[in-house]
Amino acid sequence: MIQAKGMAALKAKEALVPYSFERRNPKDYDVVIDIKYSGICHSDIHMTRDEWGENSNFPMVPGHEIAGVVRTVGSKVTKYKVGDHVGVGCMVDSCRECEHCKAELEQYCIPGNTLTYGGKERDGSAVTQGGYSDVIVVNEDFVLRIPDSLPLDKAAPLLCAGITTYSPLVHWNVGPGKKVAVMGLGGLGHMAVKLAKAMGAEVTVLSQSANKKDDANQLGADHFLNTQSKDVFQKNALQFDLIINTVSSADLNMAAYFGLLKLDGTLVSVGAPEKPLSVHPFPLILMRRNFAGSAIGSIKETQEMLDFCGKHNITPEIELIEPNQVNDAYARVLKSDVRYRFVIDMGKI
Amino acid sequence: MIQAKGMAALKAKEALVPYSFERRNPKDYDVVIDIKYSGICHSDIHMTRDEWGENSNFPMVPGHEIAGVVRTVGSKVTKYKVGDHVGVGCMVDSCRECEHCKAELEQYCIPGNTLTYGGKERDGSAVTQGGYSDVIVVNEDFVLRIPDSLPLDKAAPLLCAGITTYSPLVHWNVGPGKKVAVMGLGGLGHMAVKLAKAMGAEVTVLSQSANKKDDANQLGADHFLNTQSKDVFQKNALQFDLIINTVSSADLNMAAYFGLLKLDGTLVSVGAPEKPLSVHPFPLILMRRNFAGSAIGSIKETQEMLDFCGKHNITPEIELIEPNQVNDAYARVLKSDVRYRFVIDMGKI
Repeated sequence: MIQAKGMAALKAKEALVPYSFERRNPKDYDVVIDIKYSGICHSDIHMTRDEWGENSNFPMVPGHEIAGVVRTVGSKVTKYKVGDHVGVGCMVDSCRECEHCKAELEQYCIPGNTLTYGGKERDGSAVTQGGYSDVIVVNEDFVLRIPDSLPLDKAAPLLCAGITTYSPLVHWNVGPGKKVAVMGLGGLGHMAVKLAKAMGAEVTVLSQSANKKDDANQLGADHFLNTQSKDVFQKNALQFDLIINTVSSADLNMAAYFGLLKLDGTLVSVGAPEKPLSVHPFPLILMRRNFAGSAIGSIKETQEMLDFCGKHNITPEIELIEPNQVNDAYARVLKSDVRYRFVIDMGKI
Repeated sequence: MIQAKGMAALKAKEALVPYSFERRNPKDYDVVIDIKYSGICHSDIHMTRDEWGENSNFPMVPGHEIAGVVRTVGSKVTKYKVGDHVGVGCMVDSCRECEHCKAELEQYCIPGNTLTYGGKERDGSAVTQGGYSDVIVVNEDFVLRIPDSLPLDKAAPLLCAGITTYSPLVHWNVGPGKKVAVMGLGGLGHMAVKLAKAMGAEVTVLSQSANKKDDANQLGADHFLNTQSKDVFQKNALQFDLIINTVSSADLNMAAYFGLLKLDGTLVSVGAPEKPLSVHPFPLILMRRNFAGSAIGSIKETQEMLDFCGKHNITPEIELIEPNQVNDAYARVLKSDVRYRFVIDMGKI
């Protein structure tokens, strides 16, 4: 077995503490990765607090925004070699047999893909543990190549925040001539702005924090709408082809946001609130609008996203922290006090 | 002016009573139609009771499922001649200048189309009055041709129940190889079954009334699912490309219905409840599903629908009543006690 060091929640809702554990020895198609950086996603907080009613397994080493360097490879690995810059995202395996997996849409694997942490290996052999650690062992089919032009620390958040926003932008055909709005300017929102802009769209940030206007502009947004200002929804009715909702609060006036969509427009949620939303179908009916959801992206699409970011030099804004700062970082994430993604330097574990 | 006789609610929430009123003399492009039959739509009940918070105008002559025969035409009318079988649906005019009107999508007219009743003529000259009457005057652009093969009484409900279900079926590409489910087997639902079947889809009725199974089969449905039966939602997960929701109750377990949709499937509501629905985005996110709305259809599409019904001999199941039975009919509609659409014989007014 391979010795690993990480940060874990030993029980639900507990603070993360240093934790030693073992990774499997590499099988024929496995890649052993020295983890250099791991991003902090809001869902790490939900998971370590067991807030999604999943009855997760503990101790739990969270982290699914992983960037590192290949340490060794299994005997039959062909895709990667020692020293390659690689990443791992939200899943480390899938059933590979259902129609979605066969269509290269593993994120929608019907029996369910294997989560990078808090999941179970498909042979039942072990609980998966995530990226807040110094080493991980992953089947080569679920390893991504990080372009040389991207620094590893900034590449890490692309594996979740990047692909989660890239995938719906591509699926709903964002490009030149399209108007896209982004609800919320956090880890996901700021990536949505950068990606949509790089795709050629006209991008508007919708935020209730007036003080984010300058940031929105610096990130490349064409417009900023303060959702607290008077008549903002009426004045901007029927404007957008697509709205990406990165806000996971349930206290949203959905009818108002739907009203901003054009005929046949779509509002797509990429983050889930704990409670249901109140949705009246009237604004959907009146302009044949859509309310949709989207989950991360496929492995193929994640690689496309990384290559796109490498080509266009797109990286998240990050705050680099050390492993012993992770609990403080969680507290700040919950206060939306991060611009815009914490990344843990796993070399300091 | 043209003398008209009809059935009207003199005030909100009052029973309908016989009512005499005037129609405008035909302008150059107007068609004067002797109304033969008028269908009863559930929204007539909402409107005469002013339940949608519209502060509607009273007295109100409801009715937007109108079939009749051309009595006279204005001097410049080219589309219709005396004696033609024609219909009028939910709208009698639109702004004709917005981008939706220019794209022949008058149902989504941005300033709002002119409702067949309870609306205002665009010159502000009069409140519009609907089809529970013996004559109506409508601009030829909002008059539909009823194919000779369709009896006028059965054609009437096509102008709302027919087009409201036809339009989303076409918009979401229903045809051979597609699996469609229909929630609710009422006036709209039974038309959705007939139309989807004629388009070549595999059709399933979802109903909480087990006793509608035989009707569903007789209407042409391939399958019937009793939504009250145990595990029905789990057993039928990921089955449908499209679900048409004709149920206007807010007490629906939307997550369960979303679970029936395939990856990228759409549940489209065509009727609006009085209260909002409780919608958790999780089942949308998990399989990139869509929750959409759709409103009636355009004039062009309504004509296509009538021609489609004429060609495939598709007509609603109706109960023909006399004008003095309309209040009893309303009471029965509210109890879902109609198979499947009341049509008023306006010759008896």
